[in-house]
Amino acid sequence: MAGNTFGNLFKLTTFGESHGVAIGGVIDGCPSGITLDFDAIQEELNRRKPGQSAIVTQRKEPDAVDFHSGIFEGKTTGTPIGFAIFNTNQKSHDYGHIKDSYRPSHADYVYDKKYGFRDYRGGGRSSARETASRVVAGAIAKQFLKGITFDAYVSQVGELQLNKNYKELDFSLTESNPVRCPDPAMAEKMENYIKDVRKEGDTIGGVISCVIKNVPIGLGEPAFDKLHAELGKAMLSINAVKGFEYGSGFEGVKMKGSAHNDKFNSDGTTQTNYSGGIQGGISNGMDIYFKVAFKPVATVIQAYETIDKDGNMVKTQGKGRHDPCVVPRAVPIVEAMAALVIADYMLLNRTIKV
Amino acid sequence: MAGNTFGNLFKLTTFGESHGVAIGGVIDGCPSGITLDFDAIQEELNRRKPGQSAIVTQRKEPDAVDFHSGIFEGKTTGTPIGFAIFNTNQKSHDYGHIKDSYRPSHADYVYDKKYGFRDYRGGGRSSARETASRVVAGAIAKQFLKGITFDAYVSQVGELQLNKNYKELDFSLTESNPVRCPDPAMAEKMENYIKDVRKEGDTIGGVISCVIKNVPIGLGEPAFDKLHAELGKAMLSINAVKGFEYGSGFEGVKMKGSAHNDKFNSDGTTQTNYSGGIQGGISNGMDIYFKVAFKPVATVIQAYETIDKDGNMVKTQGKGRHDPCVVPRAVPIVEAMAALVIADYMLLNRTIKV
Amino acid sequence: MAGNTFGNLFKLTTFGESHGVAIGGVIDGCPSGITLDFDAIQEELNRRKPGQSAIVTQRKEPDAVDFHSGIFEGKTTGTPIGFAIFNTNQKSHDYGHIKDSYRPSHADYVYDKKYGFRDYRGGGRSSARETASRVVAGAIAKQFLKGITFDAYVSQVGELQLNKNYKELDFSLTESNPVRCPDPAMAEKMENYIKDVRKEGDTIGGVISCVIKNVPIGLGEPAFDKLHAELGKAMLSINAVKGFEYGSGFEGVKMKGSAHNDKFNSDGTTQTNYSGGIQGGISNGMDIYFKVAFKPVATVIQAYETIDKDGNMVKTQGKGRHDPCVVPRAVPIVEAMAALVIADYMLLNRTIKV
Amino acid sequence: MAGNTFGNLFKLTTFGESHGVAIGGVIDGCPSGITLDFDAIQEELNRRKPGQSAIVTQRKEPDAVDFHSGIFEGKTTGTPIGFAIFNTNQKSHDYGHIKDSYRPSHADYVYDKKYGFRDYRGGGRSSARETASRVVAGAIAKQFLKGITFDAYVSQVGELQLNKNYKELDFSLTESNPVRCPDPAMAEKMENYIKDVRKEGDTIGGVISCVIKNVPIGLGEPAFDKLHAELGKAMLSINAVKGFEYGSGFEGVKMKGSAHNDKFNSDGTTQTNYSGGIQGGISNGMDIYFKVAFKPVATVIQAYETIDKDGNMVKTQGKGRHDPCVVPRAVPIVEAMAALVIADYMLLNRTIKV
Repeated sequence: MAGNTFGNLFKLTTFGESHGVAIGGVIDGCPSGITLDFDAIQEELNRRKPGQSAIVTQRKEPDAVDFHSGIFEGKTTGTPIGFAIFNTNQKSHDYGHIKDSYRPSHADYVYDKKYGFRDYRGGGRSSARETASRVVAGAIAKQFLKGITFDAYVSQVGELQLNKNYKELDFSLTESNPVRCPDPAMAEKMENYIKDVRKEGDTIGGVISCVIKNVPIGLGEPAFDKLHAELGKAMLSINAVKGFEYGSGFEGVKMKGSAHNDKFNSDGTTQTNYSGGIQGGISNGMDIYFKVAFKPVATVIQAYETIDKDGNMVKTQGKGRHDPCVVPRAVPIVEAMAALVIADYMLLNRTIKV
Repeated sequence: MAGNTFGNLFKLTTFGESHGVAIGGVIDGCPSGITLDFDAIQEELNRRKPGQSAIVTQRKEPDAVDFHSGIFEGKTTGTPIGFAIFNTNQKSHDYGHIKDSYRPSHADYVYDKKYGFRDYRGGGRSSARETASRVVAGAIAKQFLKGITFDAYVSQVGELQLNKNYKELDFSLTESNPVRCPDPAMAEKMENYIKDVRKEGDTIGGVISCVIKNVPIGLGEPAFDKLHAELGKAMLSINAVKGFEYGSGFEGVKMKGSAHNDKFNSDGTTQTNYSGGIQGGISNGMDIYFKVAFKPVATVIQAYETIDKDGNMVKTQGKGRHDPCVVPRAVPIVEAMAALVIADYMLLNRTIKV
Repeated sequence: MAGNTFGNLFKLTTFGESHGVAIGGVIDGCPSGITLDFDAIQEELNRRKPGQSAIVTQRKEPDAVDFHSGIFEGKTTGTPIGFAIFNTNQKSHDYGHIKDSYRPSHADYVYDKKYGFRDYRGGGRSSARETASRVVAGAIAKQFLKGITFDAYVSQVGELQLNKNYKELDFSLTESNPVRCPDPAMAEKMENYIKDVRKEGDTIGGVISCVIKNVPIGLGEPAFDKLHAELGKAMLSINAVKGFEYGSGFEGVKMKGSAHNDKFNSDGTTQTNYSGGIQGGISNGMDIYFKVAFKPVATVIQAYETIDKDGNMVKTQGKGRHDPCVVPRAVPIVEAMAALVIADYMLLNRTIKV
Repeated sequence: MAGNTFGNLFKLTTFGESHGVAIGGVIDGCPSGITLDFDAIQEELNRRKPGQSAIVTQRKEPDAVDFHSGIFEGKTTGTPIGFAIFNTNQKSHDYGHIKDSYRPSHADYVYDKKYGFRDYRGGGRSSARETASRVVAGAIAKQFLKGITFDAYVSQVGELQLNKNYKELDFSLTESNPVRCPDPAMAEKMENYIKDVRKEGDTIGGVISCVIKNVPIGLGEPAFDKLHAELGKAMLSINAVKGFEYGSGFEGVKMKGSAHNDKFNSDGTTQTNYSGGIQGGISNGMDIYFKVAFKPVATVIQAYETIDKDGNMVKTQGKGRHDPCVVPRAVPIVEAMAALVIADYMLLNRTIKV
């Protein structure tokens, strides 16, 4: 209810603030008997962690996960998997300047109004640091979903847009560059652009595309819990996200039905895939693909005016170690949330027929 | 779990197939003591119902709602509000042609795969007829939320796009034309275009924009249940929806943080509103606005080829009384879902502070 | 949340007041493909309905159920099953005398305090009439659970206690008498006693015992959702219930562990069954058995003093057609709730292992 | 769903096995602004912890709780409170003898059947060690519920039964003896009896009674989520519990309605309280009282025969440091679960009226 749990059958509850003792979570409902690859889990965390390249925040956080329960002799037991990532690099003093004033387009102001006060260190609960817990859970979900692939990648940074169908891309190249764009030429442009933006002390938005392959037919529920509705909610719950579209998306509104309809092949696959692998809210076995829009990070390293708690105008200066563009580090988060959604529906689907 | 319930505290469960005995639902958690305006509820249903103008389906469904419980002497009692809309115009024979074959980009195929068989009459549960129940519940939610306004309108049909900021529009004109576009000149173009598309037996997509005003500060939860995440899920759960964006949306990714940040006024309002009234997942008291993309309706009144249950190619012909464009009738559905989301968070917010 | 939904995967939401238009509900999550026996459903309703014998209330309510959705060609479709039982015999004028005063040990007073006002006709939502909806859902759950048997019976009325192990009883005799006690000699005593109590205008409490056979091993969750915890909640949610015990129950506290432990046979069954078929919250394949205590019905046909809304003492007289003892009609309700619990856990158990 | 979460608005999720790295949990929905008394939390843990007296298990577990989030400058922030209790005394080798055989009336057998394998160390997830997390959350709930008192006490051990109305007892004496019985004479008898039982290497059952005072009128929901139904589930979810009754309970079935009805005073209180403070599932402002039956602990320090995984009979010997009687240490657990239930309904009740 208070919004820190995601999923119904494969369920993640997270806790933790940016500069508290630890962040972490509990995964409840993960089936028993999965042999976990702990290196793969850490690898996903490394893709998200700060300091990994020149175009992301230079904070140093090892982001090592400690598992507390639910695993025995390397396998999931079916009982809740508790885990924590202890915070080791809490430069709280960096945040003293925001204790009494509200950063524009951050959550400072609304937290104070909602809760009466707030943990102002590093954004507290509103910090994207919380997503590290999602990456842990998503990595485990991926291992449960062996055979289903999740490939997210950066398809736009500012005005720089990768205008290629995902089928033309080689996802093995996504990790070959710090932007996580599988088109090396575009990746280089994006990287340079992000560096330029950083030099200005500014930030820039971007888009992540994601493709999920080998999803079985039948996932998703007809009315409110359509598969794409839950995918949409999952993506929109990631910090800085402003939009979600799947299949033909916003462009599809310009098409006529006769062109947009995906004609069947005799084996039940379709000749086109404007549906994005989901029809009537239910997966049809074709590739699922979608896009997620991220706004520019709100923290700019520039002087700005804002208000304090009493409504007085104050002049201040953005500082600290922040991302000039959030999308490179958000790629594993998009995959993690997608994996959590699919895992949940996989379990639910086992309950559908006599 | 099986996806026919929406909301947590102000909770709607729906039932019903297009051509069954009745559709309906149960609203659980609606506070006691609300004096209901039944005409206003019916008025919302009338905005959604078939046959209301020349550019929508010509089916005749009165869509009169019977309330079964939860109301006493005109006021809500706090107990569940059960209601039904009985189906009176069930031309099941119109659907015989789809019993054994799968209509492209419909849910026929996936239902058969998921459930083992399906109620093939009129799309069964996948029919948008289910949304009438949402409109009933949304109308009651609006009455609970007195003072908060929900204004949805058609902002795009095919390539015809209304390029005006919502502040330039007069929402009292939305209902003045069958398209539900508050710009009369654009409305006329859209209407004519829809008529042309219909003549071809074809269909076209569209976009609905929505503005919510006077939402109190503090609605929304920090992590998974961000206010816009739940709004996004609500919208994506409406039939034919392919995308959702709020505030600066997909366009916002092109902006730099220094320009995108919404500077505060001394009273806590902001000078710009790229945030779309939501920061860190929590309402900040500014107008909430978002867009919803609808694909072209899949049923075209044309000959087409498809497969039957055994994978044989069959030739068939779309028929029946269908919408050439879904957005005019979907306007009240968007408002209803938005009202359900806000009502739910209003109740939740009462539990936040000591 | 507002408490009108039971279950997670096999989920029942009910609505309706005693003297409103209709009571009913929505069953969500019932698997597709179950061929329903509608006569069996009505038969369960008949076991609960008023007027069935001389020792129950003489109200006439046909309790015929109308199904609105979720069933096609006699089979469940996997979509929500909406149903209603329309009220046909609403002698509201019988209840005028309770409009302004509070009946002792009824819910009148607390409803007024909780909701600000109440539907005073026939107890409104607090009437046991709501349980008819549970019986409908339970009857469907039983059909899903083919092979698992649910045998509830009256084991105590007032001081009259059936001191026999359930293994000595012949459940085919339960329906042979109006008390629903499978021991004919005891049934006759109970029947006569209830008649005597009725003549005094008084009421008496009772106990229902229930045995569930052929439950597969493994139902139930380790921590909060232990199988017996959910069974207990289910039973305690039935009107007038004051206590629940399973297996050795309250008597078991007097035993030593060495005697209470159920020794294994080599096939995993146990020699004794003090555990009541549940160990650590999880079914072990042995018979599940439990007892449910019902208080005497609060409505007595006698003169009594009570208070009105303003706290004035008023003299009044109980009237109307009420049960002198609730247990004979509650037998199918106990079975229904038990079936709903088992159905829910059966579905959940499908999600446990890879 | 997988049963490791309790509550809806004041929600506890627990994780952890007896001999894993840590147990702990996440409290979600605790209102912001509560100044926490950490000593009081530890005090509750001390009441539950092993080794506190001669009549409980002599294991040494400090049970110190580490809070990871949700608290800032000593106050709750409204964000999830993550916490862990690290295991420091894991004598896993004590449990080697149960790796391959199933202890009677333990969960060993059903875990293996349900999950395919199990963490056999110290009972794994089925160990009552999990309840330490409940005590932490309950202690916080109590602080939220200032003014409401929760007094649990041991009222029966074996055949030794305290036959006094709770109003005759002085709860300040409950902690004056290791049994936690507020009647010193009876406490001494119980203590001696437990010591005798322990000498035999045997165990004995008991009953805990609990009284909750100053609960506001109106908590509880009419249908499935009656206040006593949720209290019952809460109690039945505690390890070793076999029964629950409230108010007049099982004895009340012997009474006639005319005697059982609680007559009103003019201020809305009642002259008797057979209702146990709850009418129609909703609190009426009178004291809530109930009893909880605990079976004898299954681990006896005696030789016994049982089966191994392959169904072979094996002779073995109970060993380790176990409780001869569970009720003295379960008193704070009963209070904790009661506090969690009341906290949840307190928050829900804020959402009921316009």
